[in-house]
Amino acid sequence: MRGFFKVKTAKEVLESLGDIQPLGSEFVALMDAFNRVLAADILSGEDMPGFDRSIVDGYALGAKDTFGASEGLPTPLTVVGEVRMGRKPDFILRRGECARISTGGMLPEGADAVAMVEFSQKVDETVVEISKPVSPLENVILADDDVKKGQVVLSKGMLVRPQDLGILAGLGVSRVEVFNKPKAAIISTGEEIVEITQKPEAGQVRDINTYTIGGLCAEVGVEPIYLGLAGDRFEELKQLFEKGLSQADVILLSGGSSVGAQDLTLDLFLSFGDVELVAHGVSISPGKPTIIARKGNKTLWGLPGHPVSAMIIFDVFLRYLFGRLSGLSDTFAYQRHSVEAELDRNIESASGREDYIRVKLSGEEGRLVAKPILGKSGLISTMVEADGMITIDMHTEGLYRGDKVTVKLF
Amino acid sequence: MRGFFKVKTAKEVLESLGDIQPLGSEFVALMDAFNRVLAADILSGEDMPGFDRSIVDGYALGAKDTFGASEGLPTPLTVVGEVRMGRKPDFILRRGECARISTGGMLPEGADAVAMVEFSQKVDETVVEISKPVSPLENVILADDDVKKGQVVLSKGMLVRPQDLGILAGLGVSRVEVFNKPKAAIISTGEEIVEITQKPEAGQVRDINTYTIGGLCAEVGVEPIYLGLAGDRFEELKQLFEKGLSQADVILLSGGSSVGAQDLTLDLFLSFGDVELVAHGVSISPGKPTIIARKGNKTLWGLPGHPVSAMIIFDVFLRYLFGRLSGLSDTFAYQRHSVEAELDRNIESASGREDYIRVKLSGEEGRLVAKPILGKSGLISTMVEADGMITIDMHTEGLYRGDKVTVKLF
Repeated sequence: MRGFFKVKTAKEVLESLGDIQPLGSEFVALMDAFNRVLAADILSGEDMPGFDRSIVDGYALGAKDTFGASEGLPTPLTVVGEVRMGRKPDFILRRGECARISTGGMLPEGADAVAMVEFSQKVDETVVEISKPVSPLENVILADDDVKKGQVVLSKGMLVRPQDLGILAGLGVSRVEVFNKPKAAIISTGEEIVEITQKPEAGQVRDINTYTIGGLCAEVGVEPIYLGLAGDRFEELKQLFEKGLSQADVILLSGGSSVGAQDLTLDLFLSFGDVELVAHGVSISPGKPTIIARKGNKTLWGLPGHPVSAMIIFDVFLRYLFGRLSGLSDTFAYQRHSVEAELDRNIESASGREDYIRVKLSGEEGRLVAKPILGKSGLISTMVEADGMITIDMHTEGLYRGDKVTVKLF
Repeated sequence: MRGFFKVKTAKEVLESLGDIQPLGSEFVALMDAFNRVLAADILSGEDMPGFDRSIVDGYALGAKDTFGASEGLPTPLTVVGEVRMGRKPDFILRRGECARISTGGMLPEGADAVAMVEFSQKVDETVVEISKPVSPLENVILADDDVKKGQVVLSKGMLVRPQDLGILAGLGVSRVEVFNKPKAAIISTGEEIVEITQKPEAGQVRDINTYTIGGLCAEVGVEPIYLGLAGDRFEELKQLFEKGLSQADVILLSGGSSVGAQDLTLDLFLSFGDVELVAHGVSISPGKPTIIARKGNKTLWGLPGHPVSAMIIFDVFLRYLFGRLSGLSDTFAYQRHSVEAELDRNIESASGREDYIRVKLSGEEGRLVAKPILGKSGLISTMVEADGMITIDMHTEGLYRGDKVTVKLF
């Protein structure tokens, strides 16, 4: 295996990763289910709201009593009571009778509609005149209008939104089964890398990747386990890596981009038994020096040392992988939002690789314009300046000024 | 003031709220700054990377030594040493000399470029032949290429992204000044509302709004303070509300939509001294029965009881308000992402109000189609079914099938 240089396209890598199953599940309190992935369909155990409700202030009545009513010839009805909020009415309406009701109140037996107070005229304490006919069910929500008993209200694999919390609350689901959050161990290597609290000597730089990758993990609901810096000593690195394997589902090692650093990562991966090398190099720019391996159901990533390259590899592969591990049925849910824009200059691109170009957006005369930021992948400032990025696919040799491009937003 | 019905447009309300200032600030550890708002510009105290670095594996050299080199006539150079990663080279290059260097290594004095290993041929331990000329600065990042000392790298009011964590890490900023998160007190009222763990009696429904509003707060980085249910008794409600005022910046009371419930909310607001009524009713559908007041720098919101209406009012006003309170310079940062779609049927709309229509999206022959979900605002299921919503503005009386619409995504 060693030395066999398996450069893969993004598509090939994603196919190799395709059969990854979601992790286990856990029950959490409803409020904590926000932005988590449902691990089971939610079936309603009851009708909602569970009783016929008025959606206006007015008079509950039998609709047919109002047929023919008009301003000139209003229909007088006897007011037999008032519906109290949150209570079942203790009276029944007969023909010619009505009851005062507020928004949200329960319709009394004998009523099938509500006349709005705006179309009524109180004659005295017991009589009201209705000046406009109402249809059966008008201004009413029926007992099972919102949810029917037995209905699947939310599906396994969904990301829980505020309104989903709402329907679960309405149905009394106070604990929710969600998939476990994937855990990612984050390790930075490189003899030249120092802690961020340290003042680098000449030749040294601070650890950027732990922070960019930690932030990206947070964006997609992954729990980061920060294992820190490992230098370039094999044994030290191997120890940290074993710690990662024992605690996390995915190990994200960002190493140097030098051949020596890549060799070290490859040696490390292959030093474990039962490791399958998925890719040694990917046809993505920037991001080529990426090493990917599997060990059982865990994946091992040797990310490029350049911060920009590591971030792009995260976007291309790890958003998808974490979506699968999270149990998302729609793996696009963790992808970036995008906008359409117009390219403001020509860009060349080598055929045979996917190019990721950082761009800055600006609005010019109502059009959105994307201006490429041309800078080396070692410069994190190019990502800070950028609003998003565009992709030039394998088979395209470049884009022209004025071309419509899809910008994935940062 | 009492009884004076101030129905305002969204624009008028936003103008009334326009001078709201961000809250105070705090220092947090770098990792915790993700998705927070910077409370001060970040100036770099140093150049980054701080030394001239190679971005390839190869030979550090003086570019002019390679001028004229070709495959047929390569230039021989004397290899005087190897740059060790993370160390300042302890040698100086003279004309005709070079040094082995890896990606990320520090250029020795006397070198101004790096020849890639691919264009070199090792003759013996001390001589290498370079077969392609390199230009000065080729394959090199200069000491201040990423960041210059004194440069503003990030601006006050920005939401911190993963790459921003990265540049802060690179500069050694381990603690970051961010604006305090706004705090929102959430109270549900209504005699018919019960806790979600309770089995409702006929006429009762469970508390949905606490959960939908809590989820929306989480989406925009607001700390929710859950004060629970208050029933409809004035004194009980007033006590909870005072608790909210003492702890939170914004009080979100979701009340009934009945006239009685609204009267109670208005009485409550006006029972505090120094309260300015901003709006009593807004020209938004659904969401009209909304009451907004200010007390000093706190805002008081009487949201509609219908869950859908309350969510829409949150989207129209509170995303903006929380953006301002959070210190965001771009108040659109908390707005929803949107996509363009084609409407699949005509929709009528009353002039003089803004209509919010929930839609379901589907892809049909490469086009994105938005199908309106027509259901009462009391039905949370309509929000669950929807993928987003469209706005029909005040001066439009409807939209036609085939019209292009902007869908704000849920």
